[in-house]
Amino acid sequence: MDTIGIGLIGTGFMGKTHALAYGAVAAVFGDVPVPRLEVLCDTPPESAERFSAQFGFARATDDWRALVNDPAVDLVCITTPNKLHAEMVNAALAAGKHVHCEKPMALTLADAQSMVNSAHVKTAKTIVGYNYLHNPAFIHARKLVSDGTIGRIVHFRGFVDEDYQADPDLPWTWRATKANAGLGTLGDLGCHLVSLAIGLVGPVESLIAQTQTVHKTRPAGDDHPSKPVENEDIASALLSFENGVGGVISSSRSAWGRKCYLAFEIHGDKGMIRFDQERMNELELYVNQGPKSAQGFTKILTGPEHPPYGLFCPAPGHQLGFNDLKTIEAHALLSAIRDNKQACPSLADAFEIEKVIHAIAEAGEQGTRKQLNEI
Amino acid sequence: MDTIGIGLIGTGFMGKTHALAYGAVAAVFGDVPVPRLEVLCDTPPESAERFSAQFGFARATDDWRALVNDPAVDLVCITTPNKLHAEMVNAALAAGKHVHCEKPMALTLADAQSMVNSAHVKTAKTIVGYNYLHNPAFIHARKLVSDGTIGRIVHFRGFVDEDYQADPDLPWTWRATKANAGLGTLGDLGCHLVSLAIGLVGPVESLIAQTQTVHKTRPAGDDHPSKPVENEDIASALLSFENGVGGVISSSRSAWGRKCYLAFEIHGDKGMIRFDQERMNELELYVNQGPKSAQGFTKILTGPEHPPYGLFCPAPGHQLGFNDLKTIEAHALLSAIRDNKQACPSLADAFEIEKVIHAIAEAGEQGTRKQLNEI
Amino acid sequence: MDTIGIGLIGTGFMGKTHALAYGAVAAVFGDVPVPRLEVLCDTPPESAERFSAQFGFARATDDWRALVNDPAVDLVCITTPNKLHAEMVNAALAAGKHVHCEKPMALTLADAQSMVNSAHVKTAKTIVGYNYLHNPAFIHARKLVSDGTIGRIVHFRGFVDEDYQADPDLPWTWRATKANAGLGTLGDLGCHLVSLAIGLVGPVESLIAQTQTVHKTRPAGDDHPSKPVENEDIASALLSFENGVGGVISSSRSAWGRKCYLAFEIHGDKGMIRFDQERMNELELYVNQGPKSAQGFTKILTGPEHPPYGLFCPAPGHQLGFNDLKTIEAHALLSAIRDNKQACPSLADAFEIEKVIHAIAEAGEQGTRKQLNEI
Amino acid sequence: MDTIGIGLIGTGFMGKTHALAYGAVAAVFGDVPVPRLEVLCDTPPESAERFSAQFGFARATDDWRALVNDPAVDLVCITTPNKLHAEMVNAALAAGKHVHCEKPMALTLADAQSMVNSAHVKTAKTIVGYNYLHNPAFIHARKLVSDGTIGRIVHFRGFVDEDYQADPDLPWTWRATKANAGLGTLGDLGCHLVSLAIGLVGPVESLIAQTQTVHKTRPAGDDHPSKPVENEDIASALLSFENGVGGVISSSRSAWGRKCYLAFEIHGDKGMIRFDQERMNELELYVNQGPKSAQGFTKILTGPEHPPYGLFCPAPGHQLGFNDLKTIEAHALLSAIRDNKQACPSLADAFEIEKVIHAIAEAGEQGTRKQLNEI
Repeated sequence: MDTIGIGLIGTGFMGKTHALAYGAVAAVFGDVPVPRLEVLCDTPPESAERFSAQFGFARATDDWRALVNDPAVDLVCITTPNKLHAEMVNAALAAGKHVHCEKPMALTLADAQSMVNSAHVKTAKTIVGYNYLHNPAFIHARKLVSDGTIGRIVHFRGFVDEDYQADPDLPWTWRATKANAGLGTLGDLGCHLVSLAIGLVGPVESLIAQTQTVHKTRPAGDDHPSKPVENEDIASALLSFENGVGGVISSSRSAWGRKCYLAFEIHGDKGMIRFDQERMNELELYVNQGPKSAQGFTKILTGPEHPPYGLFCPAPGHQLGFNDLKTIEAHALLSAIRDNKQACPSLADAFEIEKVIHAIAEAGEQGTRKQLNEI
Repeated sequence: MDTIGIGLIGTGFMGKTHALAYGAVAAVFGDVPVPRLEVLCDTPPESAERFSAQFGFARATDDWRALVNDPAVDLVCITTPNKLHAEMVNAALAAGKHVHCEKPMALTLADAQSMVNSAHVKTAKTIVGYNYLHNPAFIHARKLVSDGTIGRIVHFRGFVDEDYQADPDLPWTWRATKANAGLGTLGDLGCHLVSLAIGLVGPVESLIAQTQTVHKTRPAGDDHPSKPVENEDIASALLSFENGVGGVISSSRSAWGRKCYLAFEIHGDKGMIRFDQERMNELELYVNQGPKSAQGFTKILTGPEHPPYGLFCPAPGHQLGFNDLKTIEAHALLSAIRDNKQACPSLADAFEIEKVIHAIAEAGEQGTRKQLNEI
Repeated sequence: MDTIGIGLIGTGFMGKTHALAYGAVAAVFGDVPVPRLEVLCDTPPESAERFSAQFGFARATDDWRALVNDPAVDLVCITTPNKLHAEMVNAALAAGKHVHCEKPMALTLADAQSMVNSAHVKTAKTIVGYNYLHNPAFIHARKLVSDGTIGRIVHFRGFVDEDYQADPDLPWTWRATKANAGLGTLGDLGCHLVSLAIGLVGPVESLIAQTQTVHKTRPAGDDHPSKPVENEDIASALLSFENGVGGVISSSRSAWGRKCYLAFEIHGDKGMIRFDQERMNELELYVNQGPKSAQGFTKILTGPEHPPYGLFCPAPGHQLGFNDLKTIEAHALLSAIRDNKQACPSLADAFEIEKVIHAIAEAGEQGTRKQLNEI
Repeated sequence: MDTIGIGLIGTGFMGKTHALAYGAVAAVFGDVPVPRLEVLCDTPPESAERFSAQFGFARATDDWRALVNDPAVDLVCITTPNKLHAEMVNAALAAGKHVHCEKPMALTLADAQSMVNSAHVKTAKTIVGYNYLHNPAFIHARKLVSDGTIGRIVHFRGFVDEDYQADPDLPWTWRATKANAGLGTLGDLGCHLVSLAIGLVGPVESLIAQTQTVHKTRPAGDDHPSKPVENEDIASALLSFENGVGGVISSSRSAWGRKCYLAFEIHGDKGMIRFDQERMNELELYVNQGPKSAQGFTKILTGPEHPPYGLFCPAPGHQLGFNDLKTIEAHALLSAIRDNKQACPSLADAFEIEKVIHAIAEAGEQGTRKQLNEI
C-alpha cells in the first residue's frame, strides 16, 4: 500500500490537529503509506465544506455513517465529543476501517468495553489519542527507566492540571453533567496522566482516592440562576502498582495558572527523572554517580538523540510543539498498519487507562480501596 | 528584663544553629532581651568545653539536669536526639524555664502529650523548631491567603523530600528502628510539611494514607549482613481539612536529588501560590486579574516588603539563608517572653502536627481512614 | 488567486521545514491562497525524486533554473547554501516569481545589494527566513514595547549561542572559509539576533565590536593535520541605536550547552521583558506597578491571546514548535501576495540586518567604531 | 592571639552586616581568634550608643579617629560612605590596625592608590568587601575552572543589575554627583562583577566601553525642579584579558526587576559554567562528556561538598544567605591575621578592580580603547 485514505470526523481542537498530523506525517517520516485526505465530516454541511477546503480534504459530508462506509476511506479519525466515540468506533471497525480515536474512549466502561470487543474480532489497527506518550522527552524517560539508569523504581508522583474550569463565574455547560460529559477532570486530563504512569511504572493493582467538586454549582442563565456540577473538579489517588511501587497522582481542571501542567517525577534507587509538559522539550535527570560536588538535576533539551525528534529538526533544542506529537501518533498507527501489528496504545491498551480513572472516581465517591481487577 | 540567660543542650546540626541564632537575634532585631549565652551541655565533658568556647558560651557542662536547674539560665534550648526531648522539656518546664525544643516533639504521642501537659500548668513560654514557618516567603504566602488574594482555598498539595536515605548501600543505623527513631520520613521531614499545611489551610479533620519502606533492610556489618528498617521511607496522604478543603501530601527521605525540597502549592478560586524551600527566597503567585495575555506566575523575590527580611538586609533579592530562619524563630520566642504571651508554634500547637504524622503512619499501616479527633 | 504554485530548491534542514510549512499553512490559517507543491529541486536527480515524493511535490528536477522558470511555479523557496542565494534569487525575481529566501541573504554585502536591487524593480513579494520574528512570544514582546507597557526603552541586551562548533576536535569544513561560508557565527546565528534587536528597538546607528576565532585551526585529515579557521567563532558588539538606546549583543557558535539560545532582555523605564528561544513559548515581563511586595517577573505562557498561536491550538500553554514558526513566516508571505503589499522582512528589510553583521565583523577586525550609514 | 578587638565605623546596611559577621565568625569556623566587639562609631553620639547596644559592642563613640587609635582595637571595619574610605583606611593603617574596608575603595584612583601605598609599608592585613567572591558556589566555580573541568577558557560574559535607580521619578540625591558618589553603577555594582571576572579569568589587558545616563536629570524639590545626574546608570564593556580571552560585561542600576542580578557565564572548550547571585546557592555546569542524549546543564545545589558551606550547615541545599558571605569574608581576614599572610582581596588586589571600572568609565566617555597598564 503506497497511500492510505483518511476520513476525519470532527473539526474542533482535535479535528484540526488530526488534519495537520495526517498532512505532515509522510513528509516528516518518509516511511509510511502517504495519507490521502479523502473525506471530512462535520455538521452542518456548510461547515463540513468549509473545513474540508481549509484542511485539504477531497470531499465533505455531514453524514458520519457515509464516511465510515466510504470505500476510499481506509482509516477513520474520530475527534467528536466523547459520548459519540463508541458508536462511531464500533461502526468504523464493523466497516473494516482502521481507527484513530480521541481520548477518553467513552463516558462509561461499558461503552469502552464494547469498543475493545469490536476491535478484538477485527484485523484493523487502532490507536487512542494519548499524544503525550509520543513526546520524544517521554520516550526518552521510558528508555532511561528501562535501561536502569535510575535503578529500581521506588515511587511515582504525577499531576495534571489546567485552569479552564477555575473561574467560579463560568457558566454551566454540558461539561458539568455525567450524562453528557461523564467524568470531570479525570476524563479530560487525568487519563493522560494515567497513560504516562502506566507507561513508566506498569499496571495499577489497587488505589484509594479523594474527589472534590469545588464549584458545586454554576450560573445557568436567567431561568436557572445556577445548576449543579455533577462531576469532579479535582481528583487525587494513592496508587499501588502491581510491581509493588507506590504512587501519588492528582488532577485539577480548576488550577489557576496551569495551562498544560502534565508533570511527573519517578524516583529510583539510583536517581530521579522529572518532567513537565509545559516545558515539553526538557527532561530533568539526577543520577547518583560521579563526585557529590558535581551532582544535580541535569536539564536535557531534546534533540536528534531523542527519536523521532530529528525527523522534525536536525538541530537540538529547537523544540517540537504540541501538534508535532499528534504527527508522531499518526505515524505510530500508519507504521502499525504498514507492518500489520498493533499500534500502542490500542483500544485494548487504552481500556486499562479507562479502568483506572473510573476506579478513582468510584473510590473517591465510596471512600474505599478499589482493586483494578474488580473493575 | 534586659537580658536573658540561655542554656543549650546539644551541639549537632541544630545545636550550632541555635547558638548562631541566639548570638545574632538581638543585633538583627534590636527589640528583645539580649541573650546571655550561659551554659552549654554536651557529652563528653571535653566536647562541651570545646563547643562552649567556640559558640561563645560562658560555661560548659555534661550534666543536662544541672543546666536546666541553673539559676542563670532562663531559657533552655533542646537539640538532642528526639527520644530525649520529653524528659528534658518536662524537667526544664518543671524548673520554670522557657523552652525552645527541636522538632519533632517526641517519638510517641504519649510523650508529646506529657510535654503539652507540663507546659499547660506553667507560665513559661515554649516554641518548637518548625523553622520553615518563619521564612518571610512563607509568612507572605499566609498573608496572601488571609488577604483573599487567591480567593477561597480549594486545594492544597505539599511535598517534602531529601535523599539522605536514598542510597541502598547506606549502612543500618538507629534511624531505622522505631524504638530509637520513632517514625521515619514523617518524623524527620513530614512534620515540617504538616506545619506548613496547617499554617496555610487550617486543622486536618481526617486522612487516608500510604506508607512504604523502600529499602527494607540495610547492611549492618560483618555479623549482621543486613538488619530490617522498621520505619517508613516514603509516606503519602490524602487530607480532608476541617474547612472542607482537600489536600495531597507526600514525603520521602529516599528521593535522589532532593536536598531540601519542602514545596507546596495552594489553589484558590482566584489564584495559586507555589513555593519550594530549595529556592527559599522566591514565591510564585498567579492571580486571575488583568488581561489574559499578561497573566502568568509572578516570581516574587523576598525583600524588605516581606518582614522581617528587612532587618537582615535592606536590599531585596539579596537572600536570607537557612540559619536566618532559626534567628527569626528565636525572636518569636524572645518577643513572646517579653510580651508575656504564647509563642507560635508552642508545644500545644506542635502537638497538632504530631497527631497528623502519627495518624498518617497508622492509616498507612492499617489501610483505613483516620479521624484526627480520634488520635 | 485560489492556489499558488510552490517551487522549492534544497532539501536540507531548511528545505524540509519549508516543505512542511507550505504543506500546513492553508490548513492552519485558512485565509491565504492554497499552496500547490509543484516542483522540488535537488541534486543528484535521484535525491530530487526521493524528496519530491516524501515532501508531496508533484514533480522533481535537478535544474534550479528550470524550476525558477517553470510556469506552474509562482513562488520560489531558496534553501540552498548561502553562497548560492544571490544568483538564484536574482533569477527567480527576473522570472517574475515571489521569493522566500533563507538567511543570511548572501556572503557579501555586494551580493545582498544585488538582490535588493532585483527586488526593487519587480512587483514580486519577498521574505527572508528570520523565522524567530514570527514567534507569537516575540510578536507579543513587540506589542508590549509599542504599547508602552515597559515605558521608554533604555537598554537592550541580546545573545545567540549554539555549540555546533564548540568541540576543538571537529574536523575542518567549508564552514571555516570566508570564500564558502562568509562570516562565521554572525552569518549563522548573529543575524537572527540582529533581526530581533532591530525589531524591538529600531535601526542601529553605530557600533564597536570584538570578534574571536577560538579554534584557530581544525584537523583536516591525513595530508593536512590542520587547516585555518578564517571566520569568527564569537562576536560581540556595543550598539548605539538611532533613537539613542544603547545595546550589548554577543554570539557564539562554540558555546557548550547552548542549543538554540537566542535570548534578549529589553529594559524600559517602567519595566523589563526577557525571552529565551530555548523556552520559546514563554515570555517574562516585569512592570513597576502594584504593591512592591507583589512585583516580580511574570512568566507568560503563550496562548490564543498571543496571535497567531490560537490558529495552531486553542488551548494556552500547549506550545508551538520550531517548524510552526516557518508556517507563520510562509503565511506572512502568502498574505502579502494576497494583499499585494510587502511582506516583512523583505529583502530590503533584511539588507539592514546584513549591514549590521558585516559592520560588526569589520569593527571587530579593525578595532574602530563603525557608522552604519557608511557601510 | 586568642581574641581580637574589633572597631566598626558605620551602622548602615554594611555596618550591620559586619557586626553580624564578626559576631558569628568564631562560632561558625572555630579556628580563628575570637572577635571582641570593642568600639562602634557612628554619629550622632546617641546613634552610636543605640547601635553599640544592639550590635553587642562594649563601647560607643562618635569620633572615628579615637576608634582607630583605641588600643583595644586590633581590626577596623570601615563601612562609611565611599568618599570617606581613604582617610579612614590610611589613618587605621598608620595606627597599625588591620583593615576591613567596604567596596569600592574610593571615589578616585588617586585615593585608592594612597590606600595601597599605606598598606604596602605596614604589616597589617587588609581585605576589601567583595563578598560575592566568598560564595561557596563561586569558590566552586573557580575550582572547576582551575581543575580544567570546562577546558581552556574561551569567553566570559557577566552582568550585574539592580533597580534602585530605575524609577524616573526618584528624587535627585548625592548619588548623582561625581564629587560625592564618584562613579555610578560601576562603583556600586560593576566593581563586584569585575571582581568575579578577574577571579575567574585573570587580569584585564584592555577594553572598549559604552556608558549611558538614562535618567539625565532627577526631580530636586521646589527650588530646583530637576538637577543633572552626573554619573552613569548603565555601563558595558568588551574586555580583552591578558591571557587572550575575550569578555562582555554590562551593569545597570536602572534595570527593573533585577534585585541582586550578579550573573556570569564562562565558556570553555569542554564546557560552560553559569551562575546568578539571585539564586546564590546554585551553580549550573555543562560538560561535554558522556552520551549526547544525557548532556545538559546540571544544576548543582551547594552543600558540604562546597566549602565552607558545611560549617554553616551540614545538610546540602539548605542554603546560605547574603550575610553569611560577610562571615566568610571576616574569616578570610581573621585567618590571614592568624597565619600572618595576606588576605584576598587585599587593598592591592582590589586596586586592580578599581582600575578596570575607571578604565570603563573613561573608555565610555572618550570612545577609545583603554590599556589597563596605562591607567
